[in-house]
Amino acid sequence: MTEQFSKKAEAWSARFSEPVSDLVKRYTASVFFDKRLAPFDIQGSLAHAEMLAAQGIISAQDRAEIERGMAQIKGEIEAGSFEWLLDLEDVHLNIEKRLTELVGDAGKRLHTGRSRNDQVATDIRLYVRAAIDDIVVLLGSLRGALTDLAERHVDTIMPGFTHLQVAQPITFGHHMLAYVEMFGRDAERMLDARRRVNRLPLGAAALAGTTFPIDRLRVAKTLGFDDVCHNSLDAVSDRDFAIEFTAAASLIMMHVSRFSEELVMWMSPRIGFIDIADRFCTGSSIMPQKKNPDVPELARGKTGRVYGHLTGLLVLMKGQPLAYNKDNQEDKEPLFDTIDTVLDTLRIFADMAGGITVKAENMRAAALQGYATATDLADYLVKKGLPFRDAHEAVAHAVRACDTARCDLSEMSLEQLRAFSPLIEQDVFAVLTLEGSVAARDHVGGTAPNQVRKAIERVRKQLAE
Amino acid sequence: MTEQFSKKAEAWSARFSEPVSDLVKRYTASVFFDKRLAPFDIQGSLAHAEMLAAQGIISAQDRAEIERGMAQIKGEIEAGSFEWLLDLEDVHLNIEKRLTELVGDAGKRLHTGRSRNDQVATDIRLYVRAAIDDIVVLLGSLRGALTDLAERHVDTIMPGFTHLQVAQPITFGHHMLAYVEMFGRDAERMLDARRRVNRLPLGAAALAGTTFPIDRLRVAKTLGFDDVCHNSLDAVSDRDFAIEFTAAASLIMMHVSRFSEELVMWMSPRIGFIDIADRFCTGSSIMPQKKNPDVPELARGKTGRVYGHLTGLLVLMKGQPLAYNKDNQEDKEPLFDTIDTVLDTLRIFADMAGGITVKAENMRAAALQGYATATDLADYLVKKGLPFRDAHEAVAHAVRACDTARCDLSEMSLEQLRAFSPLIEQDVFAVLTLEGSVAARDHVGGTAPNQVRKAIERVRKQLAE
Amino acid sequence: MTEQFSKKAEAWSARFSEPVSDLVKRYTASVFFDKRLAPFDIQGSLAHAEMLAAQGIISAQDRAEIERGMAQIKGEIEAGSFEWLLDLEDVHLNIEKRLTELVGDAGKRLHTGRSRNDQVATDIRLYVRAAIDDIVVLLGSLRGALTDLAERHVDTIMPGFTHLQVAQPITFGHHMLAYVEMFGRDAERMLDARRRVNRLPLGAAALAGTTFPIDRLRVAKTLGFDDVCHNSLDAVSDRDFAIEFTAAASLIMMHVSRFSEELVMWMSPRIGFIDIADRFCTGSSIMPQKKNPDVPELARGKTGRVYGHLTGLLVLMKGQPLAYNKDNQEDKEPLFDTIDTVLDTLRIFADMAGGITVKAENMRAAALQGYATATDLADYLVKKGLPFRDAHEAVAHAVRACDTARCDLSEMSLEQLRAFSPLIEQDVFAVLTLEGSVAARDHVGGTAPNQVRKAIERVRKQLAE
Amino acid sequence: MTEQFSKKAEAWSARFSEPVSDLVKRYTASVFFDKRLAPFDIQGSLAHAEMLAAQGIISAQDRAEIERGMAQIKGEIEAGSFEWLLDLEDVHLNIEKRLTELVGDAGKRLHTGRSRNDQVATDIRLYVRAAIDDIVVLLGSLRGALTDLAERHVDTIMPGFTHLQVAQPITFGHHMLAYVEMFGRDAERMLDARRRVNRLPLGAAALAGTTFPIDRLRVAKTLGFDDVCHNSLDAVSDRDFAIEFTAAASLIMMHVSRFSEELVMWMSPRIGFIDIADRFCTGSSIMPQKKNPDVPELARGKTGRVYGHLTGLLVLMKGQPLAYNKDNQEDKEPLFDTIDTVLDTLRIFADMAGGITVKAENMRAAALQGYATATDLADYLVKKGLPFRDAHEAVAHAVRACDTARCDLSEMSLEQLRAFSPLIEQDVFAVLTLEGSVAARDHVGGTAPNQVRKAIERVRKQLAE
Repeated sequence: MTEQFSKKAEAWSARFSEPVSDLVKRYTASVFFDKRLAPFDIQGSLAHAEMLAAQGIISAQDRAEIERGMAQIKGEIEAGSFEWLLDLEDVHLNIEKRLTELVGDAGKRLHTGRSRNDQVATDIRLYVRAAIDDIVVLLGSLRGALTDLAERHVDTIMPGFTHLQVAQPITFGHHMLAYVEMFGRDAERMLDARRRVNRLPLGAAALAGTTFPIDRLRVAKTLGFDDVCHNSLDAVSDRDFAIEFTAAASLIMMHVSRFSEELVMWMSPRIGFIDIADRFCTGSSIMPQKKNPDVPELARGKTGRVYGHLTGLLVLMKGQPLAYNKDNQEDKEPLFDTIDTVLDTLRIFADMAGGITVKAENMRAAALQGYATATDLADYLVKKGLPFRDAHEAVAHAVRACDTARCDLSEMSLEQLRAFSPLIEQDVFAVLTLEGSVAARDHVGGTAPNQVRKAIERVRKQLAE
Repeated sequence: MTEQFSKKAEAWSARFSEPVSDLVKRYTASVFFDKRLAPFDIQGSLAHAEMLAAQGIISAQDRAEIERGMAQIKGEIEAGSFEWLLDLEDVHLNIEKRLTELVGDAGKRLHTGRSRNDQVATDIRLYVRAAIDDIVVLLGSLRGALTDLAERHVDTIMPGFTHLQVAQPITFGHHMLAYVEMFGRDAERMLDARRRVNRLPLGAAALAGTTFPIDRLRVAKTLGFDDVCHNSLDAVSDRDFAIEFTAAASLIMMHVSRFSEELVMWMSPRIGFIDIADRFCTGSSIMPQKKNPDVPELARGKTGRVYGHLTGLLVLMKGQPLAYNKDNQEDKEPLFDTIDTVLDTLRIFADMAGGITVKAENMRAAALQGYATATDLADYLVKKGLPFRDAHEAVAHAVRACDTARCDLSEMSLEQLRAFSPLIEQDVFAVLTLEGSVAARDHVGGTAPNQVRKAIERVRKQLAE
Repeated sequence: MTEQFSKKAEAWSARFSEPVSDLVKRYTASVFFDKRLAPFDIQGSLAHAEMLAAQGIISAQDRAEIERGMAQIKGEIEAGSFEWLLDLEDVHLNIEKRLTELVGDAGKRLHTGRSRNDQVATDIRLYVRAAIDDIVVLLGSLRGALTDLAERHVDTIMPGFTHLQVAQPITFGHHMLAYVEMFGRDAERMLDARRRVNRLPLGAAALAGTTFPIDRLRVAKTLGFDDVCHNSLDAVSDRDFAIEFTAAASLIMMHVSRFSEELVMWMSPRIGFIDIADRFCTGSSIMPQKKNPDVPELARGKTGRVYGHLTGLLVLMKGQPLAYNKDNQEDKEPLFDTIDTVLDTLRIFADMAGGITVKAENMRAAALQGYATATDLADYLVKKGLPFRDAHEAVAHAVRACDTARCDLSEMSLEQLRAFSPLIEQDVFAVLTLEGSVAARDHVGGTAPNQVRKAIERVRKQLAE
Repeated sequence: MTEQFSKKAEAWSARFSEPVSDLVKRYTASVFFDKRLAPFDIQGSLAHAEMLAAQGIISAQDRAEIERGMAQIKGEIEAGSFEWLLDLEDVHLNIEKRLTELVGDAGKRLHTGRSRNDQVATDIRLYVRAAIDDIVVLLGSLRGALTDLAERHVDTIMPGFTHLQVAQPITFGHHMLAYVEMFGRDAERMLDARRRVNRLPLGAAALAGTTFPIDRLRVAKTLGFDDVCHNSLDAVSDRDFAIEFTAAASLIMMHVSRFSEELVMWMSPRIGFIDIADRFCTGSSIMPQKKNPDVPELARGKTGRVYGHLTGLLVLMKGQPLAYNKDNQEDKEPLFDTIDTVLDTLRIFADMAGGITVKAENMRAAALQGYATATDLADYLVKKGLPFRDAHEAVAHAVRACDTARCDLSEMSLEQLRAFSPLIEQDVFAVLTLEGSVAARDHVGGTAPNQVRKAIERVRKQLAE
């Protein structure tokens, strides 16, 4: 039986007068990468068979045979004993052929009222839906780990940078929460994309629907889909969901790349703000002293990979006429690799967040380089009545004087400061300290420890939902 | 006054010992492209001033002066009499400088408690929000126009293609509704993105918040934002919304490119399915007979442009350390051009849909080339009891015989057909007609005119919401 | 021995206090994809050892041992008996560890005066150089096959399209030669890139060079490099060559996508210009009549994949500080997949070109639809003295009249034609035939069969070089 | 006359029954961006007219009239008095219409034997060729400026980083020369691309060549082209050169982004390796103390822009059937913006290189953090007879001991060092100094001042060629 099926090799061969060449077989086959869809292919087939039986299109007996066969196939795949054949091109034909071996005509009836076009679209959607659910959980873990880290450093002062120049003092906890916000948006986007992933294409058949009295809503319900795709041509050719997912994944990786850039810089000895636990680092084959932050560097590099997959998928779909074209087979590898990359990266970062040691004394020292409280002085003058622009200019002159004298604003005498504005009084020194500066930014979203604690509470509540 | 302001040129110059070079000025200035943000910059400033006054940070008098000045500036800009200066770098400083000319110290107080970093982020969000609202309306117009076209052709039969080979007969109305679905998802995505656009960064100041007792929720409410950005570092450095918007725009253009590809092919004389009204076409400088479908071709070409902007924005944000860096100025041009491109394209396509003439006789002739009802014959055999895979094989043999005899399946005699399966009887000829084939696909999403009518109703209801 | 090496796992571990986690190992290891570099790694090591011995840095005995060990390793790898260990991270450490097992201290001396940074850079360059050489050969095969096809159709007339509208008659041979030109430029670009690939980084060590008295020019000569990299920091961090190669590969795939687009359209039954041999096509799981041009469709889809790799590599290198960063490990997979994709695609297209059957009668029929000789009429009028713009306008009127009368220009009577210009005489009918039109374009690059034959000769000469 | 021409608006309108809509006109017109091609359009037209006259296709009188008219048009454009009309669509029709106004029928004869398709292809090639020549000159200026900087710092020691960890001491001069190498390869690539740009498409006419007895080689010679495009279909549809150019430009920007990243980091106060002259920096609207390295940040951001254009152009050409399609009009804006961006960036960087001040004491201090000479110690042990891998391990233990003792390797006593290997003797301290380490890397490409001086000489010679 296998013999016979393999000999004609493909399901369509009766129309063909010469066999497909070996090179072509290898070029066009997808089984080596799409076999990971097997569990979803089986899940979809079972729901299809259930509906066919309920609608009287196949017999209850046939359905039972199909279920029995699929149970065995599932077992074989999990046990690693399933034999995948290149000659059978893809995961779908490999499973169907094995089913027919196992249960005979019932297996040949499974494909009634569907086509590979809607079958593969269904499988990928089930697969991406599961990936989204995993990613959302991992984003939660990472946000939790970063929030823990933030909580330990609600009061740890570091310089806030703009243009990598010291801008104003902030807390490390506040800085970590910026990433918690980013990864929170990523989760939102994934859930939005999920709504468009979670629609059932099955029933579109090749492109126009089928002549059998199928019940698409029943299949949708069985498989947990929110809705069906409402146009059959669109159903088989739509890969929007893959692109939207990969775009959302690209934003995750972009956030990872920003965090990685900071981790790598912070661990550079000259900056020395943090250390990363040895288990996330590697050494050098030539330089015995090296300890390299390999994980964040590699993650930063992997950003390009996911961006590249997004480009690839967009290019793939550009200018494709309806309905299905073979081009679409190329949707899988970039999608699979995107999912693997994002899952691995989130998992390792959630773990690594706990392995970050903060060197608070270096952060503090750095915050004292660069006149971080100059804005506070300007704000002080405004509160004394000077228009902001004039205050800004007065402080700029003061900074320039400090630069020449090589001292900080807080190290100037009252007299020296008053040279730049007679409005300055003894109370100025309170606003020129790092703690004073940080505590003063006390409104929603500000860096005051008070606000950071509130923000942590807010995130904890979100994560508990 | 202008004189004095221009001489020092930039707001920070007191700290600097040499002026910025002219080449640098031109390289770093943004006023020539960001001046389109002016209405939003003014809107944001007025909301900020209102809050500053309500919180007692500036006087009611100052606020009134600012409103008076801004009203005049708005008028000047609309009248084209506003003088934009490269020396003042960007839209924000140009407006602020003019305000100070007009209302003196009150103008200098406007910048209290904010920075350009949060100001520009606010302006862009207001701008993108407005663009999304326009795009959603235009997507509705386009969907409406395509639905009208579909309605006129609920019964017009054409060949449905897969791999550009004739697959099964469908109706032109059904085909048009595939695009209605695509553009419907685009609108969903835009509205999802809008939720993340519509959060207020103002109050983040440079990066850490401000020492003034501001009320961010009040400003958010005044400006119609759904929420505030909850972390100041994130607020000034977040450009996710621009990327998410451009990704959604890329999908719109991808759909446009698919539709365009079909229009261009359909208008090729050899296919001859449609004609496009002269006003959307151009001729040739050398070939007097030419009538070229310029609009869809150009739209297909513009897909690359928007994809390119998406790549550009993703690259821009890769690896950027917090908080704001000058790199971010490069977010504007790709964003603006994306918006212009999408708006123009949707507008012109909504208009062009009404200028498409269908050549039904050519479509019908094409549907008769390529054994479009072969699947119907296979389904017929399945209903007579043959397993699907066996039915498929029997029909493949029949098609091969037709190919040799150069006739259609429907042109074979009953006897000839029965050579491929004894199950075939006289009733087979009903399923081999184009009308029979189309009408038989009568389930949700199928191509049966009956279903297409229901789908049209569904879309009309959505559009009316 | 293996035991001991594996226990410490990596070459640097003495400095570390905790082992790398399993997840991190998997995340950072490259051995599963970089093991394909093994032959090049061995080649590079042998050249390095030869130089170390010649310079007296290691003994002749050590060199002999290394050669013996490497010969055995090569054999083991080819036989598939080599045991690749994830714990040893990459191809380099796997081979070095095995070498030390086999030859002891001599193996430990091999890494003298080099680092993995310059070693991996050397391996990849050797690998890309070999890939370029293969690609150039395959481009030649493809050009040869297309030229053969062109030669068979030097006189086969088809419509030349612009905007997919019939423009002017051309020959199919001429059309094929357009692709011969494109693939010819691709070969030029590959050879240009090869010059920049073929420079030796070895000797740069980690980033600064080495303290051993190495002879880099000797190694370059042994390995067939044209030159050495002249700056050690640049040598280890340069990945320009990978990007330049991938850009050139993207252009190849772009050309393939254009050719594929045409093949798919030409095989669509409505157009029917060609047929592609069965062995390059597949059928449908549901529609028994289908024969789909899978190979060109898939190749068109793979264009996105290679474009995506280019994006990925460009993003990878953006903003990387000198010298080597772990990000660079991400250069390999996109590069490898690009090479595989291009090689497979070229091989299959060179083969498929011979499987294209031309349906000349359909081409001719199409050339008669669309007033293909209108330009010839305009040129005729110019030669009679009318300025070109006036001639163009006269012919446009004639075409419009034909459109109304539903006839071709050549079907009008002399009298009818003279209504548009009194300059028209009996000799006009010679210029209105397809053959006349084609033959008249008789200059370098023109479509006249005469010129196409000359162009074929020119290509044959290039290919013979 | 203008009146009449404008009324029919386009050159093809006689065939059309309704005018192009205003929205369509704006959507499809290119005159607002392609008018920058005017000088090249005129140059090309003059060469074409010269050839037409030489071949007797137009009269000497006509040619003289055309030259007279073009001279006037050139003057009008330079004076800014030329009136560009949207109605005339593009630069070509605007100029031709004005020419016909000025010289009558001679103007109408200019278009004999050519089409806009080959005309525009010629114009762009002339334009890109000129851009390449400018870029190559600017790359030379930048390399020269960096070489000057390198020469001033042949002996200035800084830490060489890998993974942003201190690796080995290098000199700042050596570091600068790494960029000189990169920009040198960029110039090579531009010159390679130039060879493929510099081929003449004119004479391909619409797509098939022309019936007039033109002499393409003559035109090529007049315009300084190296060769003609050898296939007319390819000539009008080829945009490889634009993509290849943009890919080479992307590599330039990638190099700029790497250099910028380093400049921004080096100027961060915590690192403090350099200062950039005030004229390349800007300040903050809120923080009076800020001096931001705007130019390198913005240049880093512009990398995304150019990458995006490359993506756009590749997408544009994907799957385009031959020969010309309107899509191709979209090649211009990305190309123009790429050229502007690269020219501006190179100009400003060549200038900025002279404005970089090195803070040598900070560099030296940093080189002493991180055991930069550990490799030297390992090499020392190898020279004493230890296999490299064993030496590496011994030094790793020594570094770990230093880490605990918080001292540098050079600060350990001989006795302490000997605990890690008995091979260590008094002469070890010479190799543990920064100067000793740097001087020891004395081979081609190494960081020894001796080698850096030789490398500078080599570059100077290249630049003088």
